[in-house]
Amino acid sequence: MTKKYLAITGGVGGAKLALGLSKLLTPQQLDFAVNTADDFVHLGMNISPDIDTLMYTLSGESNAEQGWGRRNETWQFMDALKQLGEDSWFNLGDKDLSIHITRTQKLKAGQNLTDITQNLYRQFAVNFPVWPMTNDSVSTFVETENGDLPFQDYFVKQQCAPRVSGFKFKGIKSAKLNPGIRKLLLDPDLTGVVLCPSNPYVSVDPMLALPEMRTLLKTCAAPVVAITPIISGQAIKGPTAKMMQELAMPSTAHTVARHYSDFLDGFVLDSGDIKLSSTIEELNISTVTAQTLMVTLQDRIQLAKATLDFIHKLRRS
Amino acid sequence: MTKKYLAITGGVGGAKLALGLSKLLTPQQLDFAVNTADDFVHLGMNISPDIDTLMYTLSGESNAEQGWGRRNETWQFMDALKQLGEDSWFNLGDKDLSIHITRTQKLKAGQNLTDITQNLYRQFAVNFPVWPMTNDSVSTFVETENGDLPFQDYFVKQQCAPRVSGFKFKGIKSAKLNPGIRKLLLDPDLTGVVLCPSNPYVSVDPMLALPEMRTLLKTCAAPVVAITPIISGQAIKGPTAKMMQELAMPSTAHTVARHYSDFLDGFVLDSGDIKLSSTIEELNISTVTAQTLMVTLQDRIQLAKATLDFIHKLRRS
Repeated sequence: MTKKYLAITGGVGGAKLALGLSKLLTPQQLDFAVNTADDFVHLGMNISPDIDTLMYTLSGESNAEQGWGRRNETWQFMDALKQLGEDSWFNLGDKDLSIHITRTQKLKAGQNLTDITQNLYRQFAVNFPVWPMTNDSVSTFVETENGDLPFQDYFVKQQCAPRVSGFKFKGIKSAKLNPGIRKLLLDPDLTGVVLCPSNPYVSVDPMLALPEMRTLLKTCAAPVVAITPIISGQAIKGPTAKMMQELAMPSTAHTVARHYSDFLDGFVLDSGDIKLSSTIEELNISTVTAQTLMVTLQDRIQLAKATLDFIHKLRRS
Repeated sequence: MTKKYLAITGGVGGAKLALGLSKLLTPQQLDFAVNTADDFVHLGMNISPDIDTLMYTLSGESNAEQGWGRRNETWQFMDALKQLGEDSWFNLGDKDLSIHITRTQKLKAGQNLTDITQNLYRQFAVNFPVWPMTNDSVSTFVETENGDLPFQDYFVKQQCAPRVSGFKFKGIKSAKLNPGIRKLLLDPDLTGVVLCPSNPYVSVDPMLALPEMRTLLKTCAAPVVAITPIISGQAIKGPTAKMMQELAMPSTAHTVARHYSDFLDGFVLDSGDIKLSSTIEELNISTVTAQTLMVTLQDRIQLAKATLDFIHKLRRS
């Protein structure tokens, strides 16, 4: 029987581990579920940041130095747009534009986001099945001291500066979980579920908030394992730690584990945070430590290996 | 009293003379009326080729070597789009894209094409009033042996190859002539109207087919003068001569003059076609000869000067 894993991921941090997993498993063994609540319409284009981040990462097209976007990207469009005095707070590279325009056209023509996404991935020679969390429109709003802000407004335009008090996922109640994800989670032969090190509040929570998703994770046959996005109280990238502080929670790996405690079987802690193991295990969550800071490709592969080993250990226990 | 001219223009050929005129007259003395029946929606974007050709030409942004588009243009978007296997028959430069996306956004927001166009021109430091022929949607279809083809399909995708039997301007009956053009043509102080050397069938005819336009040209106070787009039976660029042959008309300057004979006061012939003068004058159209091939900027200015001199001569006669 082929082993079969589902990796749930959001943006850049999650994609790092996703890349590691993709080097250890075949497209027959590994599916991805991706957050789409960051998606937005900008300059008339449907932009899906997390879907594209994963696509560029898995295909080797990502810009490692910049930390986002495509490699060998150019910015002629943006420069010309700035000269026109138009909105330029969201950077769109010339090559990147081809994806947004293609996606927008195909959505308008009535294709669903899953088919569009899987076709785009195939053009990038990525054959892992990738499932947007839903084909419906869900939009994260960040509740802040300056009111409810659309996610990209908060994240990009305002650089996560406003103090956060909560989150809303507009459209979540009427959105349907992607049937591809549902089917996998109902599969009795599923080997494991990996929650990649993504922001719990804005990358993972929208997926967990989809009808059925939390229940499916609780009841699925396979162990569900999360990898910490917090190391020694710090987020490697992005506002996870800042959000925890503003929400009056300790910015620790324990806070992340507790956030998922209703369905989580295992948690991968950073080796430096080993002291948190016991308090996480009190939540009925098994733990293991690993080097969770992923700088090199080898780091990504090693953390993926540690995660898969942990899943196998949990399956035997 | 300030002299006041209206220049009517289509694509690249017309824009050459427009540039010459712009070097001799001030924005207080010269308005432009531009064909919009070539406009189309491509990849979700509203593209106005003739408006942009004139904008790039008057601002010095046009790509002289290529003969269309923007100078220092790059093609990263197109290359990426081709790699996706998407429609790539219509070339869109990275910088050029900023115009189409801006126009599309503003149309969606409810602005009319005139305001959008004039704002874009101002961003390019072009202060001549430019009037799209209408704010309404008019679309040229070329009747060919392969059926009715949308203009850009015929012109760009099929490179003008199919044999032409006629033209349709979809939407023309319900389209309103731009009030800015109407006002100028009703102005008793109008000094002259210049029909730039554009294709009579696909660049000028859509404008002439707009309700009121032909009557206004017949009755306006100023001489109406056309510059030949045909020299020695050949079009400098584009399918004008080929169309004439396929429509079973001699591909000569005389055919152009006759096409406009119901409202035309004067016709500027190429010096090499002086033998056609008498047959054109039989149509009750005055003629003058000039060097109408515009290779250098100086050629453009000299032809513009000859045209203005001709108008002044007609006003005195």
